[in-house]
Amino acid sequence: MTKNEILDLIEKRDYLQIKQILFNMNSVDIADVFSQLEKADLAVIFRLLQKDKAADVFSYLDHDTQKHLVNLLTDKEISQIINDLFLDDAVDFIEEMPANVVTRVLRNTSEKMRAQINQFLQYDKDSAGSIMTIEFIDLKHDIKVEQAFDVIRKKAFDKETIYTCYVKDDTRKLVGVVTVRELLLASKDALINSIMETNVISARTTDDKEALGQLFTKYGLLALPVVDSENRLVGIVTIDDALTVIEEEATEDIEKMAALTPAEKPYLKTSVFQLALNRVVWMLILMLGAMFTGLIIERFEASISALPILVGFIPMLMDTGGNGGAQSSTLIIRGMAVGEIKPSDAPKIFWKELRVALIIGVILGVFVISRIMIFNNDPSRLVIGDAQNSPFNLALAVALSLMCTIIMAKMLGGFLPIAAKTLKLDPAIMAAPIITTIVDALSLLVYFGFLNLFITGL
Amino acid sequence: MTKNEILDLIEKRDYLQIKQILFNMNSVDIADVFSQLEKADLAVIFRLLQKDKAADVFSYLDHDTQKHLVNLLTDKEISQIINDLFLDDAVDFIEEMPANVVTRVLRNTSEKMRAQINQFLQYDKDSAGSIMTIEFIDLKHDIKVEQAFDVIRKKAFDKETIYTCYVKDDTRKLVGVVTVRELLLASKDALINSIMETNVISARTTDDKEALGQLFTKYGLLALPVVDSENRLVGIVTIDDALTVIEEEATEDIEKMAALTPAEKPYLKTSVFQLALNRVVWMLILMLGAMFTGLIIERFEASISALPILVGFIPMLMDTGGNGGAQSSTLIIRGMAVGEIKPSDAPKIFWKELRVALIIGVILGVFVISRIMIFNNDPSRLVIGDAQNSPFNLALAVALSLMCTIIMAKMLGGFLPIAAKTLKLDPAIMAAPIITTIVDALSLLVYFGFLNLFITGL
Repeated sequence: MTKNEILDLIEKRDYLQIKQILFNMNSVDIADVFSQLEKADLAVIFRLLQKDKAADVFSYLDHDTQKHLVNLLTDKEISQIINDLFLDDAVDFIEEMPANVVTRVLRNTSEKMRAQINQFLQYDKDSAGSIMTIEFIDLKHDIKVEQAFDVIRKKAFDKETIYTCYVKDDTRKLVGVVTVRELLLASKDALINSIMETNVISARTTDDKEALGQLFTKYGLLALPVVDSENRLVGIVTIDDALTVIEEEATEDIEKMAALTPAEKPYLKTSVFQLALNRVVWMLILMLGAMFTGLIIERFEASISALPILVGFIPMLMDTGGNGGAQSSTLIIRGMAVGEIKPSDAPKIFWKELRVALIIGVILGVFVISRIMIFNNDPSRLVIGDAQNSPFNLALAVALSLMCTIIMAKMLGGFLPIAAKTLKLDPAIMAAPIITTIVDALSLLVYFGFLNLFITGL
Repeated sequence: MTKNEILDLIEKRDYLQIKQILFNMNSVDIADVFSQLEKADLAVIFRLLQKDKAADVFSYLDHDTQKHLVNLLTDKEISQIINDLFLDDAVDFIEEMPANVVTRVLRNTSEKMRAQINQFLQYDKDSAGSIMTIEFIDLKHDIKVEQAFDVIRKKAFDKETIYTCYVKDDTRKLVGVVTVRELLLASKDALINSIMETNVISARTTDDKEALGQLFTKYGLLALPVVDSENRLVGIVTIDDALTVIEEEATEDIEKMAALTPAEKPYLKTSVFQLALNRVVWMLILMLGAMFTGLIIERFEASISALPILVGFIPMLMDTGGNGGAQSSTLIIRGMAVGEIKPSDAPKIFWKELRVALIIGVILGVFVISRIMIFNNDPSRLVIGDAQNSPFNLALAVALSLMCTIIMAKMLGGFLPIAAKTLKLDPAIMAAPIITTIVDALSLLVYFGFLNLFITGL
């Protein structure tokens, strides 16, 4: 509603009214509206924002809108916004801009911030360093609570979080954390090092950002300090950034598990060409795998010619194997992603999967035998030359193949993600598509094997 | 390491040393150690915890350990723990306990807390009400900043978060929020209603908890107020609970997308029987679907007998269709889960998917034609009775079937999750397994259709 209101007001050029509405709106919602404005209106409306809100709104804009906006603003305006941004937002923005925009932006950035941005750009994009911010409050270990509040009051304005303060010793090493809650509950004269928590959970700049998400979830943190190799505090990661990482990592895993190259942008903002590119490589690889399965079938052409009814069971074997493997690998991949499963759990997993596979195999096997005995019970359709075959033999061959397929699928579904993790590969690629392809081939070999055993004349 | 240390000390019965270690350990880590203790040691070690830490550690224990522990503790000890728990943790614990434990626990709970627990148990388990807590700080709208700090200091000890305070008017309606940061930056004499934010983002008790996660991500909240139908503040959801919900919802979606009934417990804690149960229903349903696909093949038995080489292309068609559909449906399901895609985007999605499918279809089609012309180019293998067939005709039939399959798969992958959402079903069930099953059947119909068109003598 507010969005349409604003669009109406833009039509009427009632800028005073727009300014008033923007004043009361949340920066996130304003950014939403901005992303839907015509390019021509963008700069005009952006200039209606209060100065201290402008950078905040800017940090929430999507990268396309940011790019358009920067091209419309003056050098002085850009300078103001960039210098007002939190460092992590500034770095995030600059990473996504084309070279000419970056040059212009950096030219209009204070020297100090430019140096910091350049330093941050060097952190690996999957590392803790890349998502941390330097706007945190640090306290000396030997001051009093009252002095700490003075420091917080003085610095609060441009810090991302003030609720967890980091305590450093004289050599700038991180020695403790203290929360504003603890400060409020302590006496004014208490020394910081007497009330601080010394058992600090921290990360290294080089740590994988996926692991950070797990720390936030496990310990219920609001912020996590990031230290360098000498335990000196260099930044913090706040929970809002951790939350984004957790969501992005889940999305990335889900995409990889569906044989997609993870996209950089939301679906609706990704071009058709990019979408096709993200899919076609895996499609080709998997198609090659399926062609190999086709070759196995070709090797058994004679059997198929002799008894075409046998082909009718192939989709069931292939699909059931694929689904069974997908179920297992999905549980293992997700379990490892959220930290519930470690590669050292492998023996427990195999033993579990084997028993699960046996239970499911027996249930589905009995079902298949019944089905064949009821609907495919015409022995005249099982004659090969002079050889007679009973429907029960066929049922047995199909059911045993099915059971073996399920066991293989579930064992592979349990094994491959763990093997990938052990080899430092992303377990998420060992998901349904790959496992389906492998199990397809194996199940056909098993199927024709059992047929040769149970069906005479093949 | 600490874990083994403690186990060693238990062996040596050095309880003083254990007490000292526990004193310095994080509650989450203590809970980790506890879950690995022998039942016999559990109560002894638990009693070494400081009183105010006991409830905190208890809230982090897994439900099995909680159950064992409660059975070992005295009524008085239970009473102390439960009354010290935050309400949401108490409710969460009680929901998971067997009836006899619940009776005993409630008997040892203060009357007030028992009433609150009973009220909370009535909220739907997927609603905001079920994950909210009532331990928040509320302020009257007409007090001064200094008085607000007095209130916070007095109440801080047993509130889950103190950093966001909720402002109520005289009729207990929620009228604003104010953060401790704002209070610290304001003058001591300022009135709360002059500095509070009146544009409050809130949820209803009946809102779906999945939607709450999206609010936290979108607005970077630390806590979200929950109001009843008359906008009276009844609770808050804190970010640590929101984080858990976000992870659980992602896990649930991932599991549903792999044809699994979502599990209540982590994989390693789920029994083999339960794991089998969570999988077998979908396996059966999908097997029925695949049997239907088998019936289609049976209908074309004559064609297969005539030219068995045709069967060799079936795995490629089925797998490629399945993978193509999985890619599309995954992107749409995940896009809807994180709020990037709405059902109203359907036309854009179909148009996008159609073009992506065409690009991929052409690339894979050309690949398949080349492959057949190089490796299956022996016309003598394509003779049916008197009818001669060129390898190119076969290649064309296969490639066209493949392209149609990809287009159908991607359109269905785009359509079915949106249809599910529109029908208020969970889109996550319209994922790879179902789409694969449907596309399998369709692709075979298309394949035999094209074969009849391009291959003479069938």
